[in-house]
Amino acid sequence: MSAPDETLGSLGEGAVLGRIFPRLPDAASALVGPGDDAAVVAAPDGRFVVTTDTLVHGPDFRLAWSSAHQLGWKSAAVNLADVAAMGARPTALVVALVAPAATPVAWLEEFADGLREGCAALAPGCGVVGGDLSVSDTLTVAVTAFGDLEGRAPVLRSGARAGDAVAVCGELGLAGEGIALLFARAVDTGGAPDAVLARALRPEFDRVLDAQLTPSPPVEAGARAALAGATAMLDVSDGLALDARRIAAASGVVLDLDSAAVGSRTALTGGEDHALLATFPADAPLPSGFRRIGTVRAGEAALHVDGRPFDARGGWDPYADWDGGVG
Amino acid sequence: MSAPDETLGSLGEGAVLGRIFPRLPDAASALVGPGDDAAVVAAPDGRFVVTTDTLVHGPDFRLAWSSAHQLGWKSAAVNLADVAAMGARPTALVVALVAPAATPVAWLEEFADGLREGCAALAPGCGVVGGDLSVSDTLTVAVTAFGDLEGRAPVLRSGARAGDAVAVCGELGLAGEGIALLFARAVDTGGAPDAVLARALRPEFDRVLDAQLTPSPPVEAGARAALAGATAMLDVSDGLALDARRIAAASGVVLDLDSAAVGSRTALTGGEDHALLATFPADAPLPSGFRRIGTVRAGEAALHVDGRPFDARGGWDPYADWDGGVG
Repeated sequence: MSAPDETLGSLGEGAVLGRIFPRLPDAASALVGPGDDAAVVAAPDGRFVVTTDTLVHGPDFRLAWSSAHQLGWKSAAVNLADVAAMGARPTALVVALVAPAATPVAWLEEFADGLREGCAALAPGCGVVGGDLSVSDTLTVAVTAFGDLEGRAPVLRSGARAGDAVAVCGELGLAGEGIALLFARAVDTGGAPDAVLARALRPEFDRVLDAQLTPSPPVEAGARAALAGATAMLDVSDGLALDARRIAAASGVVLDLDSAAVGSRTALTGGEDHALLATFPADAPLPSGFRRIGTVRAGEAALHVDGRPFDARGGWDPYADWDGGVG
Repeated sequence: MSAPDETLGSLGEGAVLGRIFPRLPDAASALVGPGDDAAVVAAPDGRFVVTTDTLVHGPDFRLAWSSAHQLGWKSAAVNLADVAAMGARPTALVVALVAPAATPVAWLEEFADGLREGCAALAPGCGVVGGDLSVSDTLTVAVTAFGDLEGRAPVLRSGARAGDAVAVCGELGLAGEGIALLFARAVDTGGAPDAVLARALRPEFDRVLDAQLTPSPPVEAGARAALAGATAMLDVSDGLALDARRIAAASGVVLDLDSAAVGSRTALTGGEDHALLATFPADAPLPSGFRRIGTVRAGEAALHVDGRPFDARGGWDPYADWDGGVG
């Protein structure tokens, strides 16, 4: 651990990178790792999968509620889930971190530790091959993640066909319950996120808080679903209802969900689940970890629940929903 | 052009993306483009080059001085230069844009136009395969760029050998003169960047302002240098002196520059040139566009100028150098 008074500003970029690099996870796929103008990464089958997702202080996380370690873990997890949703195995990350000059170096070290432990837990062998460190008043993490399809076709959103089973792997609704709980019970009288109140919610609410702050998406299930013949798949990041509608729209079909199998209303409209939602041919056995929650039907693209149209939006739109609060 | 009162906040994320996608450049390498959980990009020789660079409002650009179009162009250019510096040909970009909700959609459309025109001018065939749009009080652009080595070994910083020629392709010092000019003559009495004063500097100072605001790094020269046998190469982004020292350190040699060949003092210590600095075997003819500026000598890693140690730092450290100003 570094001395508490060391900040990004007092050390400067080069020295900070020297402290962070040893803590970052190595990537087995790295042919040239961090430290040159660019990295070189193996793409064994002549293609690579790439996705990027940004976490911004304010709309996407609050420092009063998320430790540096938790934020590092989540930054990896949400991107690994997108790679998995293509049916790919994650191979590498690049991480752009933009932080205030007054940020303690110790905070950044913990962030790197969280990234490393998230990769080790969710996608062993996946590591950081490069990045960028810049300064801003608003703490922002932009991760780009890569994956290898191992010779398979990517699983898109557009392949669902009438008769397919709709199935999900991973938890639904817990992360949404976690953020609702924090906004209800971990804000001060002015509505600002409060670290002491957030801590007081543990251990009673560990499960929903962990789902929100350190999600563990079923990353290895992505390749498993592809091998089992998944016809469509996505990462449920904006709530099951909104994301199921995306498969319906891309595939030109009705996704008809069974409310009893889905569970709670929060499971339908909460966000940030990072479960995998997939469709499989009716006669294919579901791969381990997946449970059936509905059926694909012919018809104009729409989401149905128990056979009736379901139009509640759910999910999270940063431009429509963020109230400007930061904590 | 969109109606002037449409903002990211009033339209929402989905509608904004629908407006931006058609303006972004297509990538010839895209097997699956934007719109799914991830993109799939061709990596013909079983490897890909990847680099990321972030531009933050305040330390890295000022909206009073840079139009949306210029910022889009520069966001592409600085990343394409890093790909080129490995000896690779750029194939694709992903772009994470974090912008205030009040940002006009028209601004974003111009940004996309700048990205597209920058790619077309500097790396034809390279395009955008994915991205992310998020909200923040601080406008931030994080671009990740990919390249193909076409079967060649990457050109690292560590390969310079005693006797090699030191050569450069691209302009030195102009971009540094441009930013110095803006800070000297395009700020108001309180020191804040001023758009009217900046415009008044044109056309007299077009050349240095363009070098700063819409840099045109010699992207195609990267592969040419690799084919000509370059032993080391990098993108001069932090000033020739600092970046030459990086090759010296990585290779364990002295880079001895000839001040008459380098040109002005600004050429040594200005930043953001995005020229390519490379070393070549003494007996190899320099590829077109490269001019000799020095020689590699044996000795403890250091930068010399005219045979004497040169220790001025030059360059730009966002943590040490940014004064917090935004404009």
